[in-house]
Amino acid sequence: MSLSPEIFIDDPADPRLAPYAAIRERDLVGRQGRFIVEGEVTLRLMLSAASRFRTESILLLPERVAGLADLLGALPDPPPVYCAARAMMSAVAGFPIHRGVLAVGLTGTPPEPDALIPALPEPATVLALVGLTNHDNVGGLLRNAAAFGADAVLLDPETCDPLYRKAIRVSAGAALTVPFARAASADALLDLAERHDLVPLAMTPGAEHDIADAPLPARALVLLGSEGPGLAPALMAKSRTIRIGMAPGFDSLNVATAGAIALRELWRARRRV
Amino acid sequence: MSLSPEIFIDDPADPRLAPYAAIRERDLVGRQGRFIVEGEVTLRLMLSAASRFRTESILLLPERVAGLADLLGALPDPPPVYCAARAMMSAVAGFPIHRGVLAVGLTGTPPEPDALIPALPEPATVLALVGLTNHDNVGGLLRNAAAFGADAVLLDPETCDPLYRKAIRVSAGAALTVPFARAASADALLDLAERHDLVPLAMTPGAEHDIADAPLPARALVLLGSEGPGLAPALMAKSRTIRIGMAPGFDSLNVATAGAIALRELWRARRRV
Repeated sequence: MSLSPEIFIDDPADPRLAPYAAIRERDLVGRQGRFIVEGEVTLRLMLSAASRFRTESILLLPERVAGLADLLGALPDPPPVYCAARAMMSAVAGFPIHRGVLAVGLTGTPPEPDALIPALPEPATVLALVGLTNHDNVGGLLRNAAAFGADAVLLDPETCDPLYRKAIRVSAGAALTVPFARAASADALLDLAERHDLVPLAMTPGAEHDIADAPLPARALVLLGSEGPGLAPALMAKSRTIRIGMAPGFDSLNVATAGAIALRELWRARRRV
Repeated sequence: MSLSPEIFIDDPADPRLAPYAAIRERDLVGRQGRFIVEGEVTLRLMLSAASRFRTESILLLPERVAGLADLLGALPDPPPVYCAARAMMSAVAGFPIHRGVLAVGLTGTPPEPDALIPALPEPATVLALVGLTNHDNVGGLLRNAAAFGADAVLLDPETCDPLYRKAIRVSAGAALTVPFARAASADALLDLAERHDLVPLAMTPGAEHDIADAPLPARALVLLGSEGPGLAPALMAKSRTIRIGMAPGFDSLNVATAGAIALRELWRARRRV
């Protein structure tokens, strides 16, 4: 009944499986224009209109083919679908593949930051990540950006890749749908804000204004730094600093959580207008 | 200059180091009344008045002793402080100890859930975790409970231990300060709510009321379930269901993030009264 052109492969050295080889080791060195997607939910997202990315190929356990036939059969130009037995799939990947659904996406040409910012006079919420090297936090922030309708996410050069395998997983697939781009430097983020009339809001525990009371601009660039060092003083000096009010004695939130709260307040402020 | 009675140990088989042996393996099987604390910040918290737990012993690299002398010298009844060279400390622990600060805490007798709930007519915010088996999420929720002033956290039998090593770390130490207790069952959580006049608020994406618009009770039990299966229908049927409004097309938040937003709304509602 399957309409998908699945191709059974029984040679682990088949070159068509090369992008799936030694997945964890390759996580560390990168994949030159490719990334790995795991699980049916994220694969469906990558193949949907919401995704910005092309799927190069899909690798399934035989028992997963039928469940994806509807999806693959409906695609005008489906990618190749490879099929391999569980032991071989795990041997190629280098760890046990429980869910039996892997795919390779193509990063394509990265967009320019300027291209992602809504043009005046539209309202805009853009999230800027500075020095965030933890994949869980970057994945979580992409997820929160999707949940609270951020228009785009900008990354400084130190922030890790949202298409890293774990970041995609933690993002619940939002890394494939939320537009993101890398700026040339942290200062370049402020230049972008100026050029596009975004008010830079630097999130920092020592800020004067609580986000619950501060008037929020219709066009904002929300700057988040890492939990230890935080944002550089030079960045904060050129921004409106904002804090999240907390109970006395424990002034500490995870950066992805802080981002969720800030983006939610901006999203609600926009809806009230 | 140190006032602390540090004891240099150069035999990895010294029985005083036994609680520090094979830390990762022991994470899996538990420690019979003990838990491991890592890093100076969390150790300082455990030794402070904010912590509910006694410190059984401390294990430091020699170069970390001077930096902790102020703290240890000020304690009326300091725990034993052991000192070991880096190679030996790592060999005992079973992995490289970079920060050079470990300690063993004692769980003591766990409190009864009833004892942790503020008595009427005080306002109360109690967080209840149901079926949360991920240490990052439980640690994150303890952190968020501290940040937004929850009075206590209750755990169903399936939810993992907040004193698991990774949960303490992710909690930024809040697992040592926020009172928590385990209920006999998920139903027992609702019995507790009834007994203490707490309104059960079940957080679920399909709820009728958005937390931004719903009137929030002065005494609440906030119920959170795991992201996949969510809360059991029987629990939700006996609760007021509440959702967190999100942008169209992506109705998905990490459970620790959802908890942060719910606790923050309750905390703000209490402050407005």
